Amino acid sequence: MVIGNKAVTGKFNLNDLPGSAGRMDIMCRCIASALFLSHDVRRDVEVYLLLLGPPDPPKAVRVVGGEVKYMAPDERNIGGILSKALTVKVDKSWRESTPGVYVARKTLEELLDDLVKKYEVYYLREDGMDIREVELGENSLFILGDHIGVREDMEAIIEEKCKGIVSIPTRKLQADHCIVIAHYELDRREREGV
Amino acid sequence: MVIGNKAVTGKFNLNDLPGSAGRMDIMCRCIASALFLSHDVRRDVEVYLLLLGPPDPPKAVRVVGGEVKYMAPDERNIGGILSKALTVKVDKSWRESTPGVYVARKTLEELLDDLVKKYEVYYLREDGMDIREVELGENSLFILGDHIGVREDMEAIIEEKCKGIVSIPTRKLQADHCIVIAHYELDRREREGV
Repeated sequence: MVIGNKAVTGKFNLNDLPGSAGRMDIMCRCIASALFLSHDVRRDVEVYLLLLGPPDPPKAVRVVGGEVKYMAPDERNIGGILSKALTVKVDKSWRESTPGVYVARKTLEELLDDLVKKYEVYYLREDGMDIREVELGENSLFILGDHIGVREDMEAIIEEKCKGIVSIPTRKLQADHCIVIAHYELDRREREGV
Repeated sequence: MVIGNKAVTGKFNLNDLPGSAGRMDIMCRCIASALFLSHDVRRDVEVYLLLLGPPDPPKAVRVVGGEVKYMAPDERNIGGILSKALTVKVDKSWRESTPGVYVARKTLEELLDDLVKKYEVYYLREDGMDIREVELGENSLFILGDHIGVREDMEAIIEEKCKGIVSIPTRKLQADHCIVIAHYELDRREREGV
């Protein structure tokens, strides 16, 4: 789950994802990193975004790997799919905008309450336990911030609800690169039967 | 170094990187994966592209992490920089188009001959030795194909000139994700003093 602090919650210009769309490019890359393999999609993965930018926050987006169709890994394609999702009239329950893509009105707290029922939720932050040292189940979900990070009041909610804080201790990495590495660490364990 | 089998070697439309630009989106993401940290650039990294699409192949692009300016990690921004590089008149020697971005007319063989003088060159392919088991120096450079892979006649040249074949054995991954993991493996070793 990725928090987009400034990512817009209404119409945006596909030619300006980083600027007027509030770093929507990061959200697009995070979806691509979470879902795409070479010529394939990780069908057992879900991605959640929490978009907090204007004009109509908060909105949560849910992308279901096993259901998405017509999605390509480039930013503009995913941006187009998100743009469509943000035109849907939202309420508290998930509504499908395109195959496998859902949108709802959810606060961080509401979204987390949903997620902890389905997943072992970890917060990915620099001071956490080394991801390689942590026992992670197949059913792990990671929470990440965008280029701004996560606001203190939101951190308090996450820390209360998550199972633990985990880090990629090598370098300060972009959110989408952290997702690639989290997958890699889980894939390694699966492969080695750990 | 990434081989773009269809990536165009002239003008292209920034609104259609995957289509008419011959999967230039992959080239853009590979550069971003190789160079960007969170709010920083890996200043000790170089990225090379070998572009083989129409209208004027082959062209090689060299991006120097320690010299680039005004580059953002989104595909459109990097696409714009590549587009500018492809308007430069090329010959056998590198010409700078924007800070830290160079272009030249080089075949695979010529480019590899340059690279093996500066780097320990590895070919990243599925049947190689597990990257985690291979002793890699700080000065490693990896060769990757795009969505199509690497043509057989080119593979023969690479195999002849490279130091070894290395794999990320977990899953079949996109080239840009392979680069994130290659960095991660090298960063881990640096951190652990191996």
